[in-house]
Parts: sequence; C-alpha cells; structure tokens
Amino acid sequence: MRVTPAEGMNDFLPEETELRDRLIGDIVSTYRANGFTKITTPIVESIENLDNSDGGDNLKLIFRLMKRGKKLEDALLSGSAREMCDLGLRYDLTLPLVRYYANNRAKLPSPFKCIQIDRVYRAERPQKGRSREFVQCDIDIIGSESSDCEVELISVTAEALLKIGVSEFTVRINDRSILRSVIEYAGFPPEDADTVCVSVDKLDKLGEDGVRDELCGKGYSEEKIDRLFEIVGGDGITPQSLDFCCGKETIDSLSDIIEKSKRLSGGKYDIKFDITLVRGQGYYTGTIFEIDCPAFGGTVAGGGRYDRLIERFIGERVPAVGFSIGFERIYFVSLAGKKRGVSRKKAALLYEEGKVVDAVAYARTLHGEYDVTLVIKKKKVGKQLGQLQGAGFDCAVLLDGDGQAEIRHLSES
Amino acid sequence: MRVTPAEGMNDFLPEETELRDRLIGDIVSTYRANGFTKITTPIVESIENLDNSDGGDNLKLIFRLMKRGKKLEDALLSGSAREMCDLGLRYDLTLPLVRYYANNRAKLPSPFKCIQIDRVYRAERPQKGRSREFVQCDIDIIGSESSDCEVELISVTAEALLKIGVSEFTVRINDRSILRSVIEYAGFPPEDADTVCVSVDKLDKLGEDGVRDELCGKGYSEEKIDRLFEIVGGDGITPQSLDFCCGKETIDSLSDIIEKSKRLSGGKYDIKFDITLVRGQGYYTGTIFEIDCPAFGGTVAGGGRYDRLIERFIGERVPAVGFSIGFERIYFVSLAGKKRGVSRKKAALLYEEGKVVDAVAYARTLHGEYDVTLVIKKKKVGKQLGQLQGAGFDCAVLLDGDGQAEIRHLSES
Repeated sequence: MRVTPAEGMNDFLPEETELRDRLIGDIVSTYRANGFTKITTPIVESIENLDNSDGGDNLKLIFRLMKRGKKLEDALLSGSAREMCDLGLRYDLTLPLVRYYANNRAKLPSPFKCIQIDRVYRAERPQKGRSREFVQCDIDIIGSESSDCEVELISVTAEALLKIGVSEFTVRINDRSILRSVIEYAGFPPEDADTVCVSVDKLDKLGEDGVRDELCGKGYSEEKIDRLFEIVGGDGITPQSLDFCCGKETIDSLSDIIEKSKRLSGGKYDIKFDITLVRGQGYYTGTIFEIDCPAFGGTVAGGGRYDRLIERFIGERVPAVGFSIGFERIYFVSLAGKKRGVSRKKAALLYEEGKVVDAVAYARTLHGEYDVTLVIKKKKVGKQLGQLQGAGFDCAVLLDGDGQAEIRHLSES
Repeated sequence: MRVTPAEGMNDFLPEETELRDRLIGDIVSTYRANGFTKITTPIVESIENLDNSDGGDNLKLIFRLMKRGKKLEDALLSGSAREMCDLGLRYDLTLPLVRYYANNRAKLPSPFKCIQIDRVYRAERPQKGRSREFVQCDIDIIGSESSDCEVELISVTAEALLKIGVSEFTVRINDRSILRSVIEYAGFPPEDADTVCVSVDKLDKLGEDGVRDELCGKGYSEEKIDRLFEIVGGDGITPQSLDFCCGKETIDSLSDIIEKSKRLSGGKYDIKFDITLVRGQGYYTGTIFEIDCPAFGGTVAGGGRYDRLIERFIGERVPAVGFSIGFERIYFVSLAGKKRGVSRKKAALLYEEGKVVDAVAYARTLHGEYDVTLVIKKKKVGKQLGQLQGAGFDCAVLLDGDGQAEIRHLSES
C-alpha cells in the first residue's frame, strides 16, 4: 500500500487544519457581513460542461472520471479516451456557479451575491511542485451590469485579505477591451488580438525583450511591436490617456472603478491601472483584476466580469462578475509566520483505565472552559505530564480511582 | 450545456448551505470539546490503495480517474480499463485516515484522537435516488486497544447527535467474533461465516423467513438454520447468555462497553446488544456499532474496531476504532423540520447607483449588528421593500444622495 498522498495531494496535520479552518472562517464571516450568502456546488461536473467552459489552459488540466458498468464496456470498444469518460473534477468555482445559477435562478434573488469556498482540482505537472487539489474563496455578483459591483467585490475581497493578515498588496485593474483596442491601434489584425494578449501576459515572466522576441517569432513586424510597446510600456499611463484609441464609455467606467476603489481602500492597499493585465480564462468579457502581494509570493486573488457565460446555459444574457482568492499560497505563508492565533484552551484528563464513565462525567464539567482530551494514566505520570506539556496542553487533570481530581497547570517555561 | 448537476450530485441553496454549515459546526465543536482534533485528507487517493482497502461492496462503487498524457496513450493500447486509471475518489474516510496515520505517525500523539468531516463519493445506481457525493462526520481513536475507546466514541457521537437535535435513538452494539462463534456453533463451516453473515445482515430488510430462504438457497440444511435462529432469534439475549459458545474475554469486554455506555447515556438514548448487527466493511475486527433513529429514517451512524488495517501500510499492528455519522440523512430531516436556528440579522442597504463608496462606508458602520447587503435602489422603492421583506431581510436602510440614512424595520406580519 502507498503511504504518501497521491501525487500533488496534501495531508494536513491537526494544527495545520486548525489554521486553515480559522483563516477560512475569517474570510467567510467577512463575506457574510457584506451580505454575500454561501452556496455549495458539487466537485464533480459533467465532462461536456467542463470541456465547453472556455477556461483557457485549465481545460488541459481536467481530471476525467471513467464511465462505469455497461457504458464503460461499450466505450472501451471504441478505443477513444474521450468516449470512456462522462464526468470530471471542476478546475475552478466559476463554471459550477454558472451552471448552478442556470439551474436554480427561480429560487435566487437578483442580483445574486454569493460565496463559494471549496476545493478545485487541476492535473498540474508534478515536477512543478504545485498542488493538484486546492481551495479557492470566491465571491460573485450575478445579474447586475453596474460597475458598482466591481467596486464592491474589490473592497470586500481586500477587506477579507486584511482580516487574515495579508497587507501591503496592490490591486491591479484592467479592461479586456482596452488592451484589445491598443493592440488593434498598433496595427495587429483584430483576429490576432488573443495571441498577442497571450504574449503580453508573459511580461512579468519574460520581460519586455522576451515578449518582443516571442512576438517576432510569431511573425509580427518590428514596427507593430514598437507601436505596441510605445503605449503599454509608457510611464504614467492612465485609462484617460488612451482616449485616442479606446472608447469613452469603457475609459470612463474603468476610471470610475479605480477612483472609487482608491477612496474605499483608505490607503491600506494600492489600486493601480495595469494595461498589461490579461488573465488566462477565455470567459472574461470586460473588467479584470488581480491582487499581488510580494510577501505572499505574487498573485493572491484574481477575477473579472464574465457577461456571456450564463447565456450558454439559458440562452439569455445575464451579466456577472467575480473575484477569487487563491487560498493555498496565503495559508502556506501564514503557517510559516506566527499567525497561529488563539484557540480554545486544552486540558488532558488523566484517568485509570476502565474508569471511563467517571472520566467522561468529569470532563463534561470542564467543557465550558476547555477542550478536554481523555488520556489513560501511565505508571510514570511525571514523564507523561512532560509529554502532554510538549504537546501543547494548558493543563492536566489527574483523576484518581475515587473520582478525586487534582489540577496541574502546564505553563510552558 | 447541461443545467442540472451531474447524476446523484447536489446543488445547495443559500439557506440550505447555512443549515449544513451550522449542523457541521455544532458537530465539530462537540468533537473538539471532547479533545478530538480535526485533520484534512485529500478526496483523491491512489487506485491501488482504494482497491485493496477491504471495503466490501463499496469497492464496486469507486469513481475512477483516468491517467493523463503519455501514460494514458500507452494504457489505451492495452484496452484494459484497469490499466487506464491511476487514481480514484475515496468512498469513505477510514482508508484515507489509515494512510494518513501511516504517513504522519511520527508527528502525531499516541493514542491519536481525530476528527474528519468531509465529502466521500460512491457511484450508486441512479435509480436508487441516492446521492453520489455526501458528507461523513468521523471520529477515530488510533493506537489504543482499551475498550474505553469504544465507550468514549459512543458517548461523544451520541452527544453530537443530541446537540444537533437528533433524539430517541438506539445504539446497537455487537462484536464480529460473537456472531461468528454462534454461526460455527450452529454447525456452519468456519470458512462460510462471511457468507452467512451477509444473509443475517439482511434480517431487517427480508425478515426471518426471507433470510431462512436465502440460506436454504445457499445450500445449508434446515437443521443448521434452525439452530442459528434458535440463538439469534431468541428473546432477552445478552452477551453473557452466549457463554456456551463464545469466549469469556469477548463477552466480558462487550458487556462492559454496553454497561458503561448505558451509564453515560443518562437515559437520553438506548443502548442495546444486537447479535444480528453485521456491518458491510470487511476491515472490522471486533466491536461494531450502529445508531438507529426512526425519525431520521434508520441508521444515522456506524462504526467499529479495525485493528488490522494500519498493519497493511506499515507492517506493524496498530489498534484503531472509529465512529462515523452519515450527515445527509440528518441534514434532510433537519431541513424538513423547523430546525433552521438563528443566524445573524440581515440588513439591505438601498443606495443610488454609482454612490457605492458612500454605501460601503455606511454599511461598515452596521457590520457589528448586521450582515449588510448592498442593493441598488429602484424607482418603485415600496415594491422593492416588499421583495426584500419576502427575502428575509430584518431591516432596510435607505441611503439618499446626500448620505442621509433612514431605517425601516421589515418585521414579518
């Protein structure tokens, strides 16, 4: 039998799980205080929905479930892997939410403001050292076109991050259509905007020279590339400064979102227009945003507006926008730091084996103040007390055969 | 695109998720107060571990994940479904716990008392109407042979059930070796004990006549079947009354567990010896138990001792015993009842579109008392207030363009 978790999967120790649960609890309570309500969607979705969800590179990382019984037997004859599977594990929480909204919209308020905090799965290559199972914390607003939603999501997500100890971060904001306008203005064919975007997205990894090389390699002229970098590489670039190539409505809306988000930040974090921000998913249609935090190793949250995704399910256009915190990176940094926080006090109740009824009865009298662990008394009680102190117990209660209790405080020296 | 969840999977609405989270929160806090610590294990395990886990009929219900990339291509050539998969979704929380313990035991206390509350997956036939994704709430004690553990698990599990409103239940207790001794005493060959157990397990479904027919059909003589039912069908049967065919140590241990569990119940629930209790999993080695609650449609919890399962991972015998609450049945009955409980008060903050900064700033002043949902004011405010009242908001705050607020209490008539 294999003792380690499957590749890319993680076991979490008791103290790790306690920290994870506390961080998640703080995020949920922040979201709830802001009027978002939590929903639950299944981890398993139909493979057709996942394959058609326009999730960019993530679609290559879907875990596929095999059909079962007679259907599997028939599919095996075809020899086609695609025929053999009918279900998959979700790679994010947006596709499940969109399907959920389409399925339940008659029972949901409009606009619908919801929370999902749950596991997602991606078959990342093991050598990258990335987890294949991880938690995302999403809030979404479905059914409103107002750019107030963007402002609200940015403010609430930032509030949740501050609550769990993430600070000194920058919210970067862009609009997909602005970057596209700039690309077209630089002379690239409109139908090539996506592939140019993919290259621009690598600016932080490759630097300007690397991206220039890549675009050259894709066969574009020096002239086009120069014109592109003249704009995206410029200092002090603002949405307004792009009025020569972008629509006024988009510019005004984005400026408004940035200005209002700045006012709500109270100076606790930065808000920045970033024309080079792309985000991988194909389903975004307008505003996109990311939060970077150097102390947490880079991007800790991302999201945007996806006004056309629900339409695919119900044939009716329903605007939507969401923001997702990637939990694992924040968790690992919190674990490395000293953000363990305070949990309930822990008592060990030492009793003589067999006297479990007395022990449980006595433990119940302590539950108001302590989490109480029953421990069978060993011969060498002194050594045992030392171990319990080492294990983080605040006190030990020694129960003798007559039900008499003696309390020992195990204060760490 | 498919709008409904995949077969056997469930969407949960906001009020349903709130109830689920509250029930789970109450169960966890009961377990924690009793000194158990929560751990997290992955939903995905290696298929070899799952296939070799001795989980009885559940092994037929494993969801299998396909290999990926080159490995999948090679496996497709073999034409064998088994070759094509490397991972599976866990069907319970015991196999993952045992692997986890084997992997992490150097960092864990002994005995290790742990909580797992998480999703498991079984490919049940859709026509049965059963969920294929469901939550189990487990506590386990690893590393102690003392029958005090059984007493503790029964008491703590019962306490958790009482806490979430499950009452009038019966804890049925048996020991695998007692039923086997009775079967052998009745004249069945020792090597047939398992198949006879499988039939006895159907007593509540088929009745005595049905089980007699089934055993006849398996080719056993009337005489053997009569002798078996003379014992298992007898009234007032106790472990002590079986001293003519069972070992004294087992009888004394089981009697002791039952007597102590009765004392700890305080008369709030019943404790009963049930010689016909079998439980499906092959990995149980000694005591087994179940909790039945008629108001919740039958069995709501089950567990037992599995002293040989960890050995398969580390080649060393480590005793273990666990008790698992099946969450879904309890949840559905709680939902149908009026056990919604009390959540935080909800306020809707109505503001003029665009004035989102004022709205967020004002909402923050209310977070101490309310969860506050921002809502863009419509022209017909009266109708909107009616809708908000219908949606369960306790009050509405109308914010005008100058930042002046008017509070309306939306008490339900």
